[in-house]
Amino acid sequence: MNPLDPKEFRKQGHMIIDFLADYYQNISNYPVLSQVEPNYLKKLLPSSAPSNPESIETILEDYKKHIIPGITHWQSPNYFAYFPSSGSTAGFLGEMLSTGLNVVGFNWISSPAATELENVVIDWLGEILNLPKSFLFKGNGGGVLLGTTCEGILGTLVVARDKILSKIGSENIGKLVVYGSDQTHCAIQKAAHIIGINPKNFRAIKTNKLNSFTLLPELLLSTIENDLKNGLVPCYLCVTVGTTSTTAIDPVGLLCKVAKDYGIWVHVDAAYAGSACICPEFRYLIDGVEDADSFSLNAHKWFLTNLDCCCLWLKDPNSLIKCLSTTNSEYLKNSASDSKQVVDYKDWQVTLSRRFRALKVWIVLRSYGVDNLRNFLRSHIEMAKTFEGLVKMDKRFEIFVPRTLSVICFRILPYSKKVANGKVQNGGVKLISNGDDFVANGKVQNGGVKLISNGEDFVANEINRKLLDSINGSGDVYMTHVKLISSENVVANEINRKLLDSINGSGDVYMTHAMVEGVYVIRCAIGATLTEEMHVVKAWKIVQDHADLILKDRKG
Amino acid sequence: MNPLDPKEFRKQGHMIIDFLADYYQNISNYPVLSQVEPNYLKKLLPSSAPSNPESIETILEDYKKHIIPGITHWQSPNYFAYFPSSGSTAGFLGEMLSTGLNVVGFNWISSPAATELENVVIDWLGEILNLPKSFLFKGNGGGVLLGTTCEGILGTLVVARDKILSKIGSENIGKLVVYGSDQTHCAIQKAAHIIGINPKNFRAIKTNKLNSFTLLPELLLSTIENDLKNGLVPCYLCVTVGTTSTTAIDPVGLLCKVAKDYGIWVHVDAAYAGSACICPEFRYLIDGVEDADSFSLNAHKWFLTNLDCCCLWLKDPNSLIKCLSTTNSEYLKNSASDSKQVVDYKDWQVTLSRRFRALKVWIVLRSYGVDNLRNFLRSHIEMAKTFEGLVKMDKRFEIFVPRTLSVICFRILPYSKKVANGKVQNGGVKLISNGDDFVANGKVQNGGVKLISNGEDFVANEINRKLLDSINGSGDVYMTHVKLISSENVVANEINRKLLDSINGSGDVYMTHAMVEGVYVIRCAIGATLTEEMHVVKAWKIVQDHADLILKDRKG
Repeated sequence: MNPLDPKEFRKQGHMIIDFLADYYQNISNYPVLSQVEPNYLKKLLPSSAPSNPESIETILEDYKKHIIPGITHWQSPNYFAYFPSSGSTAGFLGEMLSTGLNVVGFNWISSPAATELENVVIDWLGEILNLPKSFLFKGNGGGVLLGTTCEGILGTLVVARDKILSKIGSENIGKLVVYGSDQTHCAIQKAAHIIGINPKNFRAIKTNKLNSFTLLPELLLSTIENDLKNGLVPCYLCVTVGTTSTTAIDPVGLLCKVAKDYGIWVHVDAAYAGSACICPEFRYLIDGVEDADSFSLNAHKWFLTNLDCCCLWLKDPNSLIKCLSTTNSEYLKNSASDSKQVVDYKDWQVTLSRRFRALKVWIVLRSYGVDNLRNFLRSHIEMAKTFEGLVKMDKRFEIFVPRTLSVICFRILPYSKKVANGKVQNGGVKLISNGDDFVANGKVQNGGVKLISNGEDFVANEINRKLLDSINGSGDVYMTHVKLISSENVVANEINRKLLDSINGSGDVYMTHAMVEGVYVIRCAIGATLTEEMHVVKAWKIVQDHADLILKDRKG
Repeated sequence: MNPLDPKEFRKQGHMIIDFLADYYQNISNYPVLSQVEPNYLKKLLPSSAPSNPESIETILEDYKKHIIPGITHWQSPNYFAYFPSSGSTAGFLGEMLSTGLNVVGFNWISSPAATELENVVIDWLGEILNLPKSFLFKGNGGGVLLGTTCEGILGTLVVARDKILSKIGSENIGKLVVYGSDQTHCAIQKAAHIIGINPKNFRAIKTNKLNSFTLLPELLLSTIENDLKNGLVPCYLCVTVGTTSTTAIDPVGLLCKVAKDYGIWVHVDAAYAGSACICPEFRYLIDGVEDADSFSLNAHKWFLTNLDCCCLWLKDPNSLIKCLSTTNSEYLKNSASDSKQVVDYKDWQVTLSRRFRALKVWIVLRSYGVDNLRNFLRSHIEMAKTFEGLVKMDKRFEIFVPRTLSVICFRILPYSKKVANGKVQNGGVKLISNGDDFVANGKVQNGGVKLISNGEDFVANEINRKLLDSINGSGDVYMTHVKLISSENVVANEINRKLLDSINGSGDVYMTHAMVEGVYVIRCAIGATLTEEMHVVKAWKIVQDHADLILKDRKG
């Protein structure tokens, strides 16, 4: 048995290349969202590993028969869910070369090219993003390729924590506060929990639709001031450029200015939207980044680099190294490291072992060239404009928040827009949204039926119900209540949920949802590598068809 | 531009397969350890990414010319450094298929097959390791495929921390203590630091050569008792099966028994040696694991699974999920998750995004079959026996610690073994090792030259020097000292360091070193996929040749 026999490797490798080329050729034939039931696979596979070898043909047959039906096809041109995971031939080749070499580049000596190419592409990418020189190796900053943004946030959070604790003493860890908005990625809250921040000290500062769900500097300021008043210590701020729900763009410069005054570490998370910043016309999205401490984007999202690849830049890499280095392991020592002339990436990350990720970034940049990459991203944004235009033309739908890049957040309204704006129709049902004090203040109308909207109302309801019970229980007076049925949003949410389930159940496209201010919106995230204008137009037609069905059912 | 054009993908993919097949064919021609100088690459590559596309032929040419010389060839049959990173055709194919699909399996719905195949292979692997059923999904335990052991340790450490803090209050985090030996992997100390354990509360319990550098249960017990006496709270113990330096095997069962009495979470880190436990004759190495809480091994080390793949099993996955779940992200919600019928792996790990690692494990297991895999590992152990035998036959060398599996720790002695054992020779130079109290107690001998050995002596020296200065400074008496030159070990260390540098500088083989009890040993880690008996025999010949040179130089 020679598991790296070149002849077998060549034969089987070619087989898989053909297999994957066919896969891309026929990818539109598969349901985008896998339609299997939970636990489908266990029943299909043997309960134990085989004692004897099986041929690659047999394995591939099983792969087609058992695995493919359980795949949600992120590379499908009809994939519009979450954020894209945009693979490419160049990204794939880079992965192949990296996997073939199979080097573990934890320090320079373990494969100098792995480290040095990473240094190079970090500066290349930083330059086309027009990052301040202070973030590049050539400006005494630097960066690292990690698996995910979560790792970048975790690492920088540790640095920020340790910096402050070195001043105020580690016994005060319970006082540290981490800031983000209620739209910030869950990674930050998880990372804060992991490093020992009191969960009560994570501030998810409220955003609102009026401000496009961006983090408002004045709210950050007042939150910080309030924390200081309470004896707490501000530590870390995560600014998001392109939130997961609605691609909200937090105002980087203004937020940095607020944070700077308090010595808060600012990380700019541009996981998805950062890629667009290679286009000069979108660079403004990260204006002010020169005042941040760290910046990251995921090349595996919207930069044609196959999974996984998060690019993290820092102005002061030494602060990271100071926190994450492991100098006590003699077996990792070598004269190159001792010379301090080299980067040992093990000291820039949480884990020791690491893959040679720079290869794929290098090949993507060279294989397509920066101009083409810019145009490729622009083409997705153009397609998003097309989709947005189509939504706007259908009076049953609304664009919920203005589109920033290639994600459209929309929803169907259960009544015409006019009705939704507050006029009574449909058998005397009044639709009111966001009526915090509604139950407390409102008058009974329309046959005693009122519609309330969101969580605040439900809390109010509960209190009023208790109050009424208490009043009536006293025997002194007797009052009655109105029955509260679902609000406009509750109704709308339910319909949009049904619509999305119906769309995704078809297997024709896959979109996902977000919930903002209690409103369920459908997200159409454009950026899959194979998506073209026609797929976007078809996707909208599919949404409309399913909307027709849903609304017909409702009336029926 | 279509970056996933099937025709281009096919053409370029075949090109890379041929390229890699040739690489494996000719891999012995490359120097194993890269011989480049720091910062070699920056000078060779342009300072900016290209604006226009370049052909894959041009890129591959540059890859050969600029990248390959900077590669340390972990797949070379002459690679004996660190631990192996044993790639295989099956592992490579699995990676290709995973990279081709490029799915992000953070939850079940995002690709049910990715999650369910992971469940399946975790149970398959657990079964061939003969892990207690309580660690398998079929026994209400379960596991997850992570990138590295570091992630597994970090995750389980958070669980252990939170379990205790929920009882004693998070303000007491400073009291938690984490245990390992002075041979435990640096990952544990780093993870402990990350989660907020006071660095003073990491116990690297001393091991010694007499006990083969294993963690002694009685020392663990007394350390715990001492911590309790001081008001501290024992939290987590990392038991290592196969330490990095010398493949020491901590006694799993006995250590678990000690830890259990104090409610300490026990993680068994079998990153390298765990693979061998699929062979019944080596399964005893993890005897007692039924009393541990979690267990991990790295399939990318010695299980033919290309980077990266750490398998982590837990008896109580819910405890992990409780700590690491992110249920507040509406955009990740879906009915499958709500049904609680599925596993969402995002809640089992630090990061959100994750690659489809199960494919490669599945294909490795099926493509080779369990019997062949067992025999393959046995063949490495046989080769290690051969190497060990060769070392023993050369009187200039010693095996420093008994070999456990496929790693041999050896060193050359500057004098014959007889001399090293303490007899006076060589011009009146006496060699004494481990003589803690030597300077304090010793008599001046051999022309006033004495050799001391390790760190303890150096501390003693410093104290005696101060004492003498102080005595003489008083003016009351006057005494003199003997000049202390380097001990047997300091001399030996220097020679072994030179020997290893010389060997690695040749490019013919690559080995690394460890430092245990102040002794520098050379490690020969056998397990690269292409290594055969003849490579091991040749490797020893190379060591001998370089030893000849070094010793000749010394005499000259």
